[in-house]
Amino acid sequence: MENRLISTEQIEKLIDEKKIAEIRQIFEVVPSIDIADACAEIEDPKKIIFILKTVKSEYTAEFFTELPSEVKEEIISSLSNDQLAEILESQFTDDLVDDLEELPANVVTRVLRNVPKERRATINRLLNYKEDSAGSIMTTEFVVLLSDMSADEAIANIRKTGQNKETIYTLFIMDRQRNLVGTLDLDDLIFAKGDEKLESIMNRDFVTVQVNDDQEMVANIFKRYDLNAIAVLNNDGRLIGVITIDDVIDVIEEETTEDISKMQMVTPLEDSYLETSPLKMAKKCVPWIIVLLVLGTFSSMVLSIFEERITLVPILAAFIPVLMDTGGNAGGQTIALMIRGLALQEFTPKAFWKIIRKEAVSAAIIAVCVGVFALFWFSVEQYTGIVSNSAANGNIWQGNCWTGEYFWEVFKVSGLVAMTLSIGVFASKMVAVLLPMGAAAIKKDPAIVSQPLLTTIVDVTSLLVYFGFAAIVFNI
Amino acid sequence: MENRLISTEQIEKLIDEKKIAEIRQIFEVVPSIDIADACAEIEDPKKIIFILKTVKSEYTAEFFTELPSEVKEEIISSLSNDQLAEILESQFTDDLVDDLEELPANVVTRVLRNVPKERRATINRLLNYKEDSAGSIMTTEFVVLLSDMSADEAIANIRKTGQNKETIYTLFIMDRQRNLVGTLDLDDLIFAKGDEKLESIMNRDFVTVQVNDDQEMVANIFKRYDLNAIAVLNNDGRLIGVITIDDVIDVIEEETTEDISKMQMVTPLEDSYLETSPLKMAKKCVPWIIVLLVLGTFSSMVLSIFEERITLVPILAAFIPVLMDTGGNAGGQTIALMIRGLALQEFTPKAFWKIIRKEAVSAAIIAVCVGVFALFWFSVEQYTGIVSNSAANGNIWQGNCWTGEYFWEVFKVSGLVAMTLSIGVFASKMVAVLLPMGAAAIKKDPAIVSQPLLTTIVDVTSLLVYFGFAAIVFNI
Repeated sequence: MENRLISTEQIEKLIDEKKIAEIRQIFEVVPSIDIADACAEIEDPKKIIFILKTVKSEYTAEFFTELPSEVKEEIISSLSNDQLAEILESQFTDDLVDDLEELPANVVTRVLRNVPKERRATINRLLNYKEDSAGSIMTTEFVVLLSDMSADEAIANIRKTGQNKETIYTLFIMDRQRNLVGTLDLDDLIFAKGDEKLESIMNRDFVTVQVNDDQEMVANIFKRYDLNAIAVLNNDGRLIGVITIDDVIDVIEEETTEDISKMQMVTPLEDSYLETSPLKMAKKCVPWIIVLLVLGTFSSMVLSIFEERITLVPILAAFIPVLMDTGGNAGGQTIALMIRGLALQEFTPKAFWKIIRKEAVSAAIIAVCVGVFALFWFSVEQYTGIVSNSAANGNIWQGNCWTGEYFWEVFKVSGLVAMTLSIGVFASKMVAVLLPMGAAAIKKDPAIVSQPLLTTIVDVTSLLVYFGFAAIVFNI
Repeated sequence: MENRLISTEQIEKLIDEKKIAEIRQIFEVVPSIDIADACAEIEDPKKIIFILKTVKSEYTAEFFTELPSEVKEEIISSLSNDQLAEILESQFTDDLVDDLEELPANVVTRVLRNVPKERRATINRLLNYKEDSAGSIMTTEFVVLLSDMSADEAIANIRKTGQNKETIYTLFIMDRQRNLVGTLDLDDLIFAKGDEKLESIMNRDFVTVQVNDDQEMVANIFKRYDLNAIAVLNNDGRLIGVITIDDVIDVIEEETTEDISKMQMVTPLEDSYLETSPLKMAKKCVPWIIVLLVLGTFSSMVLSIFEERITLVPILAAFIPVLMDTGGNAGGQTIALMIRGLALQEFTPKAFWKIIRKEAVSAAIIAVCVGVFALFWFSVEQYTGIVSNSAANGNIWQGNCWTGEYFWEVFKVSGLVAMTLSIGVFASKMVAVLLPMGAAAIKKDPAIVSQPLLTTIVDVTSLLVYFGFAAIVFNI
């Protein structure tokens, strides 16, 4: 329980005073990421280099990985080639590749010059896999055992070769022809008898992914099968890499952030919010606002056509915002549930009709509830004079409002708005089911197409219904 | 690579024909969850019980865990007490507790009667932890070693006691006074020399959680420190349980789904979408629609006040929907980024001013871009007659529109709407930064309060700006 946060001031002071023993002590008891966070705010890269030189590399490897990329860049620029090579040696290849993807080209070149030739080849290969593919997140550091080894031989083998591997908790078993024939969890190996052959204790019901598979699919497989690590095969079915659970958690976060962004019509940011410049942020937001603005033309068109009706019954205008907001909101609820269900792969094609039936029933219930409440509430608005109905002429403060005629004039407006709202809510929810499912069916991203189309369809439908019935109700 | 999906028809046929050998073979090569999925659609629980009796319990434990809860319920009702006890014995305690939380009380009672007394006490304790607390997701099956053991002794100890533990990849090290003093990754133990003491190889910089901590906090700690398992302490600082990464992934999914639901104003569902009845769904959606409807009163009020201005310049009404939609959408973008940043704990209190400055700059850029485009686009709408401007009188199809007077009438409208839009977008984005940060500061859920308040504030502000300036522009 000696874990405590360390502040930037504390660590900077220790560096300034060259308290080597105390700095080493901190690395013993404080998690590396907490120290990296504290050091991220130190201006002078030389101070961080002092840490890298002072502390054992088994601690600094992780520490270095966790530093923000601009700090890494500064450090790499100020290090000698030997110092750089030493730091690079201790990093896992997949972490290193992640770093390189964020660093400027000249820094990347310098890093690549300072790793051994063989490793350089591996890094270059990993850098070339398509972004967001299984290849781009896999590591090439994994343990392979032969199926005819005994458990004791396997453990001896791991002790000899497993030291720098990303994981030894999942072991990959090949036959003599170098085909992947099974996986083995380290705990099963630990509990096995020493002379048992691996082929009799390994799992044969393992799953694998292809190197070009999308990382979101990989994440879904991890979740479904509760994996620690998965084998990545190339197009010839050969084992070329392994993806581990820690990288998958990052993928899950990343994909969810992307989905949420798209759902709210922001093009996903490449970096974290804090690392994105205001100009870049604007670029991610503006196109969508303009799309919506252009799509808004349809509602302006409808309103322009019905201009005369508004002039004749001006109170109609007062409820336009509430019709737009409520309809859009009701559909937004359904879109959220749909997109999440699709992302978590809860929805199979088989469930399609079931979902539509279910949503139709719940949309109908919601439409009726909201309609009834709206009828009451919009009447209250008129009776209290919050919204003035010139035809009814009067409200509870001015008296003159308990006549049948008054009631009828109020009811005409409340009834029209409530009915439009009811229809709008129902239509909006049905459109909100169909859009994401339709998008998924034609392999388009459901998160991206749904929201702007929904808004447009709902606005136009509501306005048409509203002014269509207004003509009947008010004889205009 | 023998993994393939199995269909309901295939497995049902094998059961009907009592092909025991083949069923056993399937469990060797197909992941349990795939078989459970196939069996979920089988109507007759006796057929599934046939599987449970036929196949080795090391396979059926996981298979049983993965079955949907209504199928589990049927099976439990049809099993004899002995059969039930046998199945329960092979399940992990935390999985069993998860099941019990979903089963009806009479089934729970029956299950509890059929587990050994000691285990029953543990289950009862776990069932009593607050929902969504660390206690509710922890397991009590973990490996504890003493700090003065040697590596060889530790491995021997694990081989003897670790067999039914949830994880042996993270080991928990206590001193003779039963205080938790370190954690040890199994791989470090494997690579250690046989006579090394655990206290010299264990991690002292480990983190822990309290039994009442919220599960979302636990998930964030897992992600931050890249953990496989974490120790759960009670209020006296004693180790009482362990949470493993597989359960944390479920928590991450659950919490994200909740955030997305709240952001789009649905009260989070307790079950998956497909398992929620339409009536329940309506209950989760209706309150929010009504909240928005009541908040919409403010915009109706504003419009009611400015009724006369619409009658005098009817074209003003045509742009109300686009003003509402664009403003709401611009703020929605920012809310999405804020809520995600807060959920992932990217935003520290220190970053507060930085975020506001950044958002102010990007909102200003966006407002200007959108404003300029809007000026152009709304003019196009009028020139083409999509929106008819009675004051300008004419459009490109009817001719008569290349006079200075025509241009001026069009420009008055476009300029007014574009300016309102610009101000609306800027204000909306600023409100969208402040609402979630403010909510977080007063410990309210940022996802829940932001959207309805944003919509209301933006609608009212835009309408006030719009009709305020309209009075000046049109002299009304």
